[in-house]
This record gives sequence, structure tokens and C-alpha cells, in this order.
Amino acid sequence: MKARPRRLQAQRWLPAWCEGYQRETLASDAVAAAIVTLMLIPQSLAYASLAGLPPEVGLYASIAPLLMYALLGTSRVLAVGPVAVVSLMTATAIGDHAAAGSAAYWAVAITLAFLSGLMLLAMGLLRLGFVANFLSHPVISGFISASAVLIAAGQARVLLGLQVPGEHFVEIAAGVLARLSQVHGPTALLGLGALAFLFWTRKGLKPLLIRLGMPSRLADFTARAGPVMGIVVTALLTWGLGLQEQGVRVVGAVPAGLPPLTTPLWDPALWQSLAVPALLISVVGFVESVSVGQTLAARRRERIEPDRELVALGASNLGAAFSGGFPVTGGFARSVVNFDAGARTPAAGAFTAVGILLAALLLTPALYYVPQATLAATIIVAVVSLIDLGMFRRTWRYSRTDFLALLATVIGTLGWGVEAGLIAGVALSLGLFLLRTSRPHIAQVGLVPGTEYFRNVKRHRVIESPAVLGLRVDESLYFANSRALEDWINAAVAGRPGLRHVVLQCSAVNAIDASALESLEHIDERLRGAGLQFHLSEVKGPVMDRLQGTDFLTQLSGRVFLTHYQALRELAPDLFGVEEGVKSPAPVF
Amino acid sequence: MKARPRRLQAQRWLPAWCEGYQRETLASDAVAAAIVTLMLIPQSLAYASLAGLPPEVGLYASIAPLLMYALLGTSRVLAVGPVAVVSLMTATAIGDHAAAGSAAYWAVAITLAFLSGLMLLAMGLLRLGFVANFLSHPVISGFISASAVLIAAGQARVLLGLQVPGEHFVEIAAGVLARLSQVHGPTALLGLGALAFLFWTRKGLKPLLIRLGMPSRLADFTARAGPVMGIVVTALLTWGLGLQEQGVRVVGAVPAGLPPLTTPLWDPALWQSLAVPALLISVVGFVESVSVGQTLAARRRERIEPDRELVALGASNLGAAFSGGFPVTGGFARSVVNFDAGARTPAAGAFTAVGILLAALLLTPALYYVPQATLAATIIVAVVSLIDLGMFRRTWRYSRTDFLALLATVIGTLGWGVEAGLIAGVALSLGLFLLRTSRPHIAQVGLVPGTEYFRNVKRHRVIESPAVLGLRVDESLYFANSRALEDWINAAVAGRPGLRHVVLQCSAVNAIDASALESLEHIDERLRGAGLQFHLSEVKGPVMDRLQGTDFLTQLSGRVFLTHYQALRELAPDLFGVEEGVKSPAPVF
Repeated sequence: MKARPRRLQAQRWLPAWCEGYQRETLASDAVAAAIVTLMLIPQSLAYASLAGLPPEVGLYASIAPLLMYALLGTSRVLAVGPVAVVSLMTATAIGDHAAAGSAAYWAVAITLAFLSGLMLLAMGLLRLGFVANFLSHPVISGFISASAVLIAAGQARVLLGLQVPGEHFVEIAAGVLARLSQVHGPTALLGLGALAFLFWTRKGLKPLLIRLGMPSRLADFTARAGPVMGIVVTALLTWGLGLQEQGVRVVGAVPAGLPPLTTPLWDPALWQSLAVPALLISVVGFVESVSVGQTLAARRRERIEPDRELVALGASNLGAAFSGGFPVTGGFARSVVNFDAGARTPAAGAFTAVGILLAALLLTPALYYVPQATLAATIIVAVVSLIDLGMFRRTWRYSRTDFLALLATVIGTLGWGVEAGLIAGVALSLGLFLLRTSRPHIAQVGLVPGTEYFRNVKRHRVIESPAVLGLRVDESLYFANSRALEDWINAAVAGRPGLRHVVLQCSAVNAIDASALESLEHIDERLRGAGLQFHLSEVKGPVMDRLQGTDFLTQLSGRVFLTHYQALRELAPDLFGVEEGVKSPAPVF
Repeated sequence: MKARPRRLQAQRWLPAWCEGYQRETLASDAVAAAIVTLMLIPQSLAYASLAGLPPEVGLYASIAPLLMYALLGTSRVLAVGPVAVVSLMTATAIGDHAAAGSAAYWAVAITLAFLSGLMLLAMGLLRLGFVANFLSHPVISGFISASAVLIAAGQARVLLGLQVPGEHFVEIAAGVLARLSQVHGPTALLGLGALAFLFWTRKGLKPLLIRLGMPSRLADFTARAGPVMGIVVTALLTWGLGLQEQGVRVVGAVPAGLPPLTTPLWDPALWQSLAVPALLISVVGFVESVSVGQTLAARRRERIEPDRELVALGASNLGAAFSGGFPVTGGFARSVVNFDAGARTPAAGAFTAVGILLAALLLTPALYYVPQATLAATIIVAVVSLIDLGMFRRTWRYSRTDFLALLATVIGTLGWGVEAGLIAGVALSLGLFLLRTSRPHIAQVGLVPGTEYFRNVKRHRVIESPAVLGLRVDESLYFANSRALEDWINAAVAGRPGLRHVVLQCSAVNAIDASALESLEHIDERLRGAGLQFHLSEVKGPVMDRLQGTDFLTQLSGRVFLTHYQALRELAPDLFGVEEGVKSPAPVF
């Protein structure tokens, strides 16, 4: 009786997973946090430089957001922080407003994180998470692959020590190829060496360590530390060989200390011009985060709640904005590592935040000699795994429409940048969907002999009555396709002098809007004028509810039948008496 | 043998209706042309002034376009020329580029007609007429009603002799109300008098003439001449009473002569900024013209061909551009008059063109004293008949979604102008359609006892097996709704421990895109993981064709059944042996 109320009091303010938190859970979370911290230090520095920001900003963006997400998120293993695609989108968005590296640039990045946080929070509170559903899988996949190619091309410049201007893939690729003779030898050696080493640690290091007798768990831990080793080794080489004097660019002085308390710029004109980029960053970040979260939750038979995720990501971005960071989201690689390393609760995320905080306080002097080329190698290795070429083949095989949207996204992203690519992909996929629904599949149907089923006369051996035209429209009727139905019926009726009845089977009609209702009235009028009756069959409940409030049903020349079979029994009794009728030609498959 | 080839030769260059053209047809067409000419002279002057152009331009725009349409159009009675809504859109489009009344303004109008003509021609040749289907009926209706209100408000200024600046309804209405004390007496008396007379001739004149003993046909002809009488009387009054010196504004000197040969401005920057207005004018003009054409064609059981109409309207607008005109389209009022007056072939249009040409050559001096207020009255009478208030009530009753689109169009048009209104209406109607399809109706279905039919358990008294969950999704599966299906199935499965099978009835699924296919794979994986099988039933032919090219069917945990009934017979034989199962609650209607 004494302890109970106090515990309830505490519970009210703590996330659900805090209850029953035990020593084993703590151990699992702590180990996972250590592994993720090792992975995040180089990645945070690298993504900050990808976004055009000083390296310490990457560390700042990995502290407060992780804590906010641990408090509010619904995934137990999602790790929030800077990610490749969002960092690239950030660089693109800020590029128009300030010069990379300047104080103004950082201030705009903070403002962008703030706006993105507000938007995510608002979308979550208004339950607008469904907006992300309007990004089709091929568009997302194409966008991520193309962004990865764009990022890799941009980082290749840094890796080779080349000065190539430009933001778009074609410019960058052409510039790199044209200046291959100017490659900076020492930088390229370091960079390509780091690249080869990092690729190798992904696949080859762990099996090697196990063959050498290391326990599996420790081997895993060591292999995860590959990027850190790469950084340490190349930094030591740079320092020891004095490569900086030979022109190898290094990270340089990184101020040590706690993340600063920052505020966004209160500039309405800036907010307005950042609105679209912030929205795109929010939606892309949300989609990436939710798909990672759902994939990992499913493996442990847990669920995440998209609308609460929006709130958590919004709070994470606001956290970034007020602690000197830039836009963040749930990252794929780090979340998978967190999951694989055995994280059990969001406490792992909080512990990771503490790890990064310690790095920001203590480790920054050690970062001075880290070559930019090593960070570039870290990014390239991370983004290459995002490129999914199989998606192109699979999409092409299954659907030309989806492939077109995929292609538009890729070409848009590579040719005109991330925002253009995303907008082109979404617009085209929505446009093609509308186009498809505006040209519905309409089938003339006949009775499958001996059954009550009706099938397309072009695909099945069915019987029909010369007095009754049965047709099925395979789409909801709405403004964009109602004229197509009118035209189809006009054309079909024209060639059939013995016709008395037209029956529209509505089993696939999920809605009839005001324009389509007018079209049905026109069809009815025209058929009546030609001495025909117009009937409906198999009208769904919700559609029927709607029609019952109108004059259409009372003025309809024909009737509404519960089933198409009943309609035929009444309108074409001859078809059932002697089972004779117009035999359709042999089935065409 | 002699005459035949020559006739064929001629036929190749003449429209189809020329063959068998006879004396009676000629007489009908000539009478109709005379009536339409009488109607068009005041309307052409009025619409030119509505578009901000000199009055003679209205006459020019009623000559070449009528001839071009007579040659190429597929409607036998459509009359092409300046119309109210397109004239307003023209004024809006040019207003940003030149001052009304200037030579530059006229040149931009010619260029706009040229661009609109090119676009219509291109759409026709590329068979893009379906684009017009994306304007829903409520959006078109709301747009036309709101434009009519906007036009009437603008003309009320002229009618009352007020100087009120502004383009938007609120500004104009507020301005007129604020300046009511400054109304110019003589102008307002003339204008309101003309307005009352014109409204009366529409309804009251013809019955009166018939009562006075005039033959019906002649009475009709005389009543049609009402607007001309209004013009003649008010012009005589103005001249006789010297009202011009008292400040009544008149048409003034109108140059007599043939339409000039003109060319558009070859200015790429101008073309670019006119592109969107020209496209909107083209689409609106096409929709108006085609709906008039189809309505009239249906009355005589003829058909028009939308793609050829586009070509004909494109040629008409090019004709306008090269003969000093401005954007034109098929008008409702004049086409109905042409039809009612007995026009039989497009020759009536050609004869009308000759009539207007004669007016341009001979009548212009007589137009000097025509008061602007009379033209304003002509316009107001014409546009008031376009306002359809019943549409608001009908749409509200039938569909809140359609009503929202209608409202957005009206508010946009009145508040921010014709272009904003049209774009808002189209965007909202498409967005709401997408939103609806992204939230599909999903029903749990059970067997109607004693039949092979399955119905929603919430609406019908049906039986179910505890081992089988049958569900029907009432929408094609595509990227925007595939996640909704995943969520629905996850939630439904969670609460049913005895479940063994999930059967998705696909009778309303008209397509499955790449994103939805991935979702189905996820659903299958998850169900398999929970020890369940996932089946499909009633997959449509085109959808099945698509699926057969993928791995989905081979990897599916369950099977694909031709009918949902077969699925239940196999998966839940107990349901048929003793007809026992979980009884659903009483039906909810």
C-alpha cells in the first residue's frame, strides 16, 4: 500500500518499457549502445560534412534526438540521427540561402530542423501519417538509389582530392572524369585504401576473426568497429607522415564541449522558402524511419504506431534544432546494428546518446588529423548498400507504369536534384494512377453454363441472350471515367438491333460520385429514348445507401437486382428454359 | 461515268455534309443564320468589351472561327465565337501584360488565341481529349456559376456608370456598394431599362406577339431580335437626347472594314507566361464546347467526336489569331439558338460568318451611339442564365466530397480569380478522389445461408467458420492503400486465436501495382509466421495475368480459388456438413 501509489506516479511520466526494466535488459542495452556509439561517431562526422556542416554538428545531432526518441518513440530499437539521404536534402535546401561552412549556413540548418520538427509534430497530432502512403514503393526505392548514386559521386570528389564544382550528377561525374589527371595522389591513396578496408570489414573481417579463434560475439563487436579503425589508422598515417602539409585535407580543429543551446531564425521569408524542402525532408525521413521501424518490429512480432512515430520524430528534430543539430530521422544501418547487437528497449538509444556526448566532450582533439577522404569513404560504403538495382528489373517485369514512375524519380534526382526527383516521381505515379482509373476495364459478361457466375465473354465460354447486354465495369465510377462508360455503352448498343435490356454489374464499383451519377442518368435517358431499359445489379451497400437519397432510382427505366443472375433469370428466361442463346466464340486466353 | 470522278474529286476536299445539300436545307440554314447573326452582333461587341478589347475585335472573332469550324467540326449546329467565361479568362490573362485598350493588349490577345489554338490542335492530334474528363461536373458547374457572378458584378459597374477598380468579386462588390451614391443617373436609367427590357424579351415578348396575332415563327424571330432592338432604341435615345454630353459612355467610332491580317507576337518569354492561362482557356473552352455539342447532337441522335472537335476548335482559334480576333469556343446560347432556329448543317455557321462580315463592313458607323451600359446589360442577361444554384443543393445532398470541390472552385473563383478557382477545384477533386481510394472499404464477409453468395457480416445475416477469415477489399490495391490493408489484416488476425486461413476476395480489385504486390508478400510472410495460410479468391483475369509473371503465386502460403465459395468449401467443410458456424449478430442496416 505504501510503494504502489509512488510507482504509479512515476509510471505516468515514464514510457511503458520502463516498467520491469531488469539487470539483463540493462546489460543487453548497454552492449548494443557501445557498438552503435562506435559506429555513429564516424558516421555523424561524415553526414555533417555531407550536409555542408562542421563535423561537431553531426555529434550534436546524435544526442538530443536520440533522447527525445527514447522518450516518445514506439519502436524499441530505432536509432535516430543524421542519415545520408536527409543530409543530402539538407545541403540542397540550404545551398540557396548561405555558403557552406558559414555561420549563416548552420543557422539555416537549425531552422530547417525546427520547421521539419514542427511539421512532423503537426502531422502526428492531426493523424496525417497517411500522407506518406502517397509515395509508392518504386518511387521511394528509386529515390533512395538515385540519391545514393548522387552522394557517392559527390564524395568521390573528396576521396580523390579533386575540386569539381556542381550539384547534379551529370556535372559531377563529367567534372571528375575530365579532371582525373589532377587527382591528388596522397589523398586518393588514403581514401581508396580506407574504402577498400571498409568494404572488406563489412564482409571479410568477422569470418577472419572467428577463424583466428575469436569468440563470435567479440568478433562481431570488433568488425563493427571497422570504421573507427579506419579513422584511427588513416589519422595516425596523416599525422605521422605529415600528409597534411602535402595537401591532404583533414577535419581540423573541432571544438570540444556540450551541444550548444540554439534557436531557429525567426524570419518569415526564410520559413516560406524552406517550407517545401522541410516538408519533403519530413516525409522522406518519416517514410525511411517507419519502414525501418516496421521491418524490425515485425521480426520481434511488435508493432509501431505511425502517428506516434511522427510525434516522436517531430520532437527529435525539435531537439536537434535547440541543440545545434540539423534534420534527423531513424537510420536504417544504425537501427539494424542496434537490433542485431541485442538492444531490448529504447534505453539503448539513451545510452548511445551518452556515448556520443562523451565523444563530443573528450574525443574531439583526436579528430584533428582525420582525413576528409576517410569520411568520404565511410559515406560511400554506407550509401552503396542503399542502391537496389534488382528493383529496376523486378519493377520493369511487373508493371510498366510503376517502372515509368521509378525512372522519372531516378532521372529527376540525378539530373535536377533530390527535390525535383521526388516531386516528379510522386506526380507521375499519381498521374498514371488517375489515368488508369480514367480508362476502366469494361467487360461484356455472359453466364458460365450450369453456374450462377458471369464472366468476360472474351475470356470464357459463356452464354448470352440477344435481348440482354450484360456488362461489368472494373472501376469505381467517378468524374474522370464516367464519360468512358457512356461512350462504351453507346457504341455497344449501336450494333445490336434485338437488344431490350442493358444490365450493369456493379460488383467492382466501390463508389459513384456526382459526375458519374449524372452520366448514369444520361445513359438511362439515351437508352430509354432508344426503347431500351437500363438495370443495375450487385450494387454494394455503401453505394446503394448513397443512391437511395437521389431521384435516380425512382426515375430509372429498369430495376436494381441483388445479383446479376437474378437479373438474367427475369430478363432472359429463355436462357434458362432451354439453355439456348448466343454462344460466344471459343475462349481467348 | 463522266460526272462521277469529278464529284469524288470535289468530295475529297469538302466536309461530308456537303453531299446531297438541297434547297430546303439551304433555306433552313439561311434562316437560322439570319437569327444567329442578329443575336451575335450585340454579343460580339459585348464580349470584346468584357475581354478589354475594342468592339470591332468581337466581330472579327466571329468570322474566321465560324468558317474554320464549319469546315472541320463534327457538330452540325455548334456556333463558335467569343463566349462570356473565356472572354473573362482572356481579360485576366492579358491584364498582367498590357493596359486594357492599348495596341499591345490586342497583340497579346491575338497571341493568346494563337497559343490556345496550337494547344487545342496538338491535343486533338495526340488524342488527348480525355484530359477534359479530369474536370468533374461539380467543378465545371461551380466554375461557370462563379464566373457568371464575377462577370455580372464587373458589368454592374458599367451599367451604373461607376468607376470601381478591382478584379476580384469582393473588391468589386464592396466598391459598388460603397459608391452607390455616385451612380450616374442617365447611364443607370438606360442600363437598367435595357436590362429589364432584355429580361422581358426572353420570356414575355414571344407570347405577347403570338397573342397579338403574329405567326409563331415570325414571333420567335422578332423575340430573338430583342437585344438588337434594345441596342437600337438606347442608341437612338442617346443620340436624340444628347446623353453622351451628359456623361453616358458610348461605343464610339468603330473602324469599318474586313478583319485585318494579324500575326501573334514571337516572344518566348511572353509565350511562357501565357502558357498556363492558354492551357486553362483551351480546356475550359473545349469542355464548354463539347458539352454543348453533345447535348445538341443527342437531341438529333447524332454523335460528335471529341478529338476531332479539338482539332476544329484549334483551327478556329488559329483563325481568330490571324484575323485580329481573340480566344473563341463553341457558345451555349448561340448554339441553342442556331439549333432551335432550324440549322441543319454547318453551312448555317458559314452564312452567319458572312452576316457578321457584312456588319463589320457596313454597320459600324451605326454603332457609335450604342451605350456601353446596353452592352453591359446584354452580358448580364446572358450570364445570369449560367448561374445554377440548384447544383449546390443537389451536390450537397449527394456527396460532401463533390460539394467540397464545388465550394473550393466557387470560393477560389470569386476570391482569387478564374485561374485560381479552376486550379483549386481540379486539385481538390483529384486529391479527394485519391484520399478516398487510399482508405478503402474493407468488409469481413460471411456466407448467406443456402446460397453461394458472401456478404458483409455487418449488413447481412451470414455464417462464418472460426478457422477462416473472409474479407473483401472494395478498391484496387495500389501504393496509397496497400498499407491500410496490411494494418486491417494485422488487427483482424490479432483477436482470433482459432484462425487458420485468411481468404481475400478480390472481386472488386481491378489492379494490383508493384507496391501493393509487396504488401501482399508482407501479409503472406507475417501470416505464415503466425501459422496461418493466406489465400486469394475471385481474382480478375487481367490481375491474374499480371501476377502469373511473378514469384508471388509460387511462394504464397495458400492458394488462389476461382470463387470465394469454393475456397470456403475446401477450407471450412464443417460449415457445409452441418451448417454450423459462428453466427453473426443480427444484421445492421
